[in-house]
Amino acid sequence: MAQKPAIPKGTRDFSQIEMARRNYIFSTIREVFALYGFAQIETPAMELMSTLMGKYGEEGDKLLFRIQNSGEKAGEAPEKGLRYDLTVPFARYVVQHRDTIQFPFKRFQIQPVWRADRPQKGRYREFYQCDVDVVGTNSLLAEVELIQIVEEVYRRLGIRVSLHINNRKVLAGIAEVIGAPDKMIDITVAIDKLDKIGVDKVNDELRERGLSEQAVTALQPILNLSGDNREKLAQLRTILVGSEVGLKGVEELERIFRELEIVDCKLDIELDLCLARGLNYYTGAIFEVKALDVQMGSITGGGRYDNLTGIFGLPDVSGVGISFGADRIYDVLTELNLYPEDLQSTTQLLFACFGEDELRFAMQCATELRRNGLRVEVYPEATKMKRQMAYADAKHIPYVAIIGSNELQEKKVMLKNMQTGEQNLLGIDEIRL
Amino acid sequence: MAQKPAIPKGTRDFSQIEMARRNYIFSTIREVFALYGFAQIETPAMELMSTLMGKYGEEGDKLLFRIQNSGEKAGEAPEKGLRYDLTVPFARYVVQHRDTIQFPFKRFQIQPVWRADRPQKGRYREFYQCDVDVVGTNSLLAEVELIQIVEEVYRRLGIRVSLHINNRKVLAGIAEVIGAPDKMIDITVAIDKLDKIGVDKVNDELRERGLSEQAVTALQPILNLSGDNREKLAQLRTILVGSEVGLKGVEELERIFRELEIVDCKLDIELDLCLARGLNYYTGAIFEVKALDVQMGSITGGGRYDNLTGIFGLPDVSGVGISFGADRIYDVLTELNLYPEDLQSTTQLLFACFGEDELRFAMQCATELRRNGLRVEVYPEATKMKRQMAYADAKHIPYVAIIGSNELQEKKVMLKNMQTGEQNLLGIDEIRL
Repeated sequence: MAQKPAIPKGTRDFSQIEMARRNYIFSTIREVFALYGFAQIETPAMELMSTLMGKYGEEGDKLLFRIQNSGEKAGEAPEKGLRYDLTVPFARYVVQHRDTIQFPFKRFQIQPVWRADRPQKGRYREFYQCDVDVVGTNSLLAEVELIQIVEEVYRRLGIRVSLHINNRKVLAGIAEVIGAPDKMIDITVAIDKLDKIGVDKVNDELRERGLSEQAVTALQPILNLSGDNREKLAQLRTILVGSEVGLKGVEELERIFRELEIVDCKLDIELDLCLARGLNYYTGAIFEVKALDVQMGSITGGGRYDNLTGIFGLPDVSGVGISFGADRIYDVLTELNLYPEDLQSTTQLLFACFGEDELRFAMQCATELRRNGLRVEVYPEATKMKRQMAYADAKHIPYVAIIGSNELQEKKVMLKNMQTGEQNLLGIDEIRL
Repeated sequence: MAQKPAIPKGTRDFSQIEMARRNYIFSTIREVFALYGFAQIETPAMELMSTLMGKYGEEGDKLLFRIQNSGEKAGEAPEKGLRYDLTVPFARYVVQHRDTIQFPFKRFQIQPVWRADRPQKGRYREFYQCDVDVVGTNSLLAEVELIQIVEEVYRRLGIRVSLHINNRKVLAGIAEVIGAPDKMIDITVAIDKLDKIGVDKVNDELRERGLSEQAVTALQPILNLSGDNREKLAQLRTILVGSEVGLKGVEELERIFRELEIVDCKLDIELDLCLARGLNYYTGAIFEVKALDVQMGSITGGGRYDNLTGIFGLPDVSGVGISFGADRIYDVLTELNLYPEDLQSTTQLLFACFGEDELRFAMQCATELRRNGLRVEVYPEATKMKRQMAYADAKHIPYVAIIGSNELQEKKVMLKNMQTGEQNLLGIDEIRL
C-alpha cells in the first residue's frame, strides 16, 4: 500500500473523543458567557496583510502565514494572510462596523488562529482562541464581570484556580517613583521573570537595561511586598504616594476587590506585582489564571486596553478582555481526569441484528426511540454477533439491543447492559436508559 | 479619520444576530446527527498540497489557496493549501487513522472551506460545509438513515423540502442499453442540465458529445418517464432489462423506497433520472434536496461512493454521505422568516441604574439571577436613562430592571416589560421572565 497520507506539521486532526472533550469545554465557556449577555461574532480566517502587519512586533510579522491564490497575479489583489490572534481582527471589526454596534459592545469569539512558529510539544501552528471582551466603557464593573466569569467557568469545569491581578498604572507609578519613568517597559519585562529566574537575576537584568543602582535599590520594597492583598495595597499606597498614575492604579485595584466582595466572589485572587504580561497595549488591570493542581502555564489571561482600535483610526475606545486557553484547559482536564463520563460515547444504544427482517424491525424501533430523543444506532449489516459487540465496546456504547429470530417473533429486543452484562427481554416501549 | 479597514473580498464578518442564526442551524443539524450516532471530527484548515492537488479537476486545482510561511524558504517544507472541501480531508483522515477508527465509521464535520472563486452574490471564498458520512459498509440502510436525517432536520427547521434521488448504476445502465457505455459521463453531464436548458438543447449537447443519432433516440423514453416513483421504476426495469448494472441500480432504489416506507418516512421523495451531480466519484445513490417554498438551488446533496479513499491508497471502502448547505439554508430561513423569535437577543434582562450604589445593588441582583440561569446584563455606567433604554431597545432585550434611589431604598427593582411598557415594583426573588 502507498505511504500513509499526512497533515502539515504543527497541525492536528481531532477525533470523536477529542471533539467531544473540546466541545464540552467550549460549550461550558459559551454558556457562562451567555449568562453575562456576551454574544458571539466570527471574522474570516484571512485578513488583509495591511490589517495584520506591524501589529505583533517584528517577530510576529515573521510568523504570519501568507495566502496566495493561484489564479491571481502578484499585485493584482491586496495581499492576504491567516489571522494570528482574535484581538486584531476584533479591533478591525469594531472600527469597520462601529455604526451598527451597540456600545458597550460585549462580544465573544471562538475561532482558530495560525502562527508559523516552530512546532513543539504543546505549541501548534493552528489552535483555537476563545476571547471575551467589553469595549466602549471605562467602568471597572467590566473587570468585575470578567473575574466572575472566570470563577464560574472553572467552577463548572471543576478546576481549582487562582487568579493573579496587577495594574499597568501601578507599574507606571513604580517606574515613576524609583526615578525611571521611561523604563516602565524594561522594568515590567524584567520583573515578569521574577518567578522564573529569581530576584538577583532580575536585578542584574534591570541594570543591563539601564536602570541606575539607586533605582534598582528603590525597587526592592516592591519586589518584596508581603501580606494579603489589602496589606499589599496599603504598602503600595505609601510607596506610590508621589505618583498620580500609580495611585490611580491602586484605587482601581481597591475598587475591583471591593466590588468582588459585594458580589460574593469566592475566587482565590492574588495581587501580583510581578505580573506584567508582555503585551504593551494593556493600560489598566492585567489578569492571569493558573490551575492549582497541575503544573501548567497560564490557562486564562487578559487585561484592560485603552486604545486597541486606535491602530485602525478609531481612538478613545476603552475595553477589557480575557482569553481562555482551550488547549491548556484540555490538558488540565485530561491530567486531572475531570471530564464527565458520558463524553465517551454519543450513542446510548446499538441495535445488533442477525438477519434482514431483524434489521428492518430494528430500523423501526430505532426510529421510534429517536422520536423520544434517544441517541440510537443500528449496526447496518446482519453480520457476526462478535463483530457487532466489538463495535459497541470500542465505541463505549452502554446498551445493545439484540434482535434474533426469537425476539423478532415476539416483537421484542434483548437489551444488554454492556457494563453489568445484565440482559432483559423488553418491548420497545419498555426501554428506559 | 483614516479610511475604514476592510476584509478580503469574498469573505464575511458574522455579527451577533447572524451568528445566533447560524448557530441555530448548526445546532439543529448537530442534534439530529447525534440522534443517529454520528460523532464530530475536525481536520486542520491547511492540508499538504499533495493531499489536495488533482482531486478537484483542473479547474479545482486553480481555485486552491496556497499558504506561504514567511520564515520558510521555498522547498524547505512541503507546500500547503487551505482545504477546498471536507470530503478529501475526510478521505485522508480515514486512511491516516484507519487503525484506530471503528468501521462503519459515522462521522460529521462542520468547518469552513476556502475557494478562490470569483466572488459574486451568494458565492463566497470562505464558507461552511456541514458533511455527514458513513464509511465502511455497503448496507443501503445507511442511505435510508441519511434520508431520515434530511427529513428530521428540515422538519425541525420548518422548511418544506423535496428530495430527488437517482442512482449512478442506473445511469451506467442507461448508457449501456442505448449502446454508448463509454459515454455515461457525457450523458449524465448533459441530462443534468435538462431542467435548465430543456430537452432539445440536451439532445444537441449529446450529439456534440459524440452520441449517435440512434443513441439519442434510444435515450428519449428515459427523458420522458412518467408516473410516480413506483411506475417509473417499473418502466426502468423494462428499459434496462439488458443491463446488469442498470438492474442493480433499480434494485437499490426499490430497496431504499421500501425501507423508507417501513420506517414511516413522510418526506416528499422523487425519482429523478436527470439528477447526476457533477461529481464523478459517486457510484450508487445520488441525492439532492430543494426547498419547496423558495426559489433556491439545492440546499443538501450527496451520494454513495465506493472508492473515495482509493486516492490515498486504501481501496474498497464504500461510503455514503450528504452535505448540508448552511449558507443557502440560512437564506431560505431568512426569506421565509422562519427563525425562532428568541434568537434576536441572548440577554433576557438589563439592569439600568442611576448611581454608584444602585449599580452595586444591581451587580448583586444580577449575580443572584444568573445563579438561577437567567441571562442578565448590568449597564456598567450610571448614565442617562435614555441611553440605557436605547441600549436595551437596540439589543432587543425584553426586560429592563430600573434601579433609582427609591428602588434602592426598598431593595427592589422597577421591572419594565419593553414590549408592553408595563412596569412592576418587584423584589429580586419575585422576578419571573
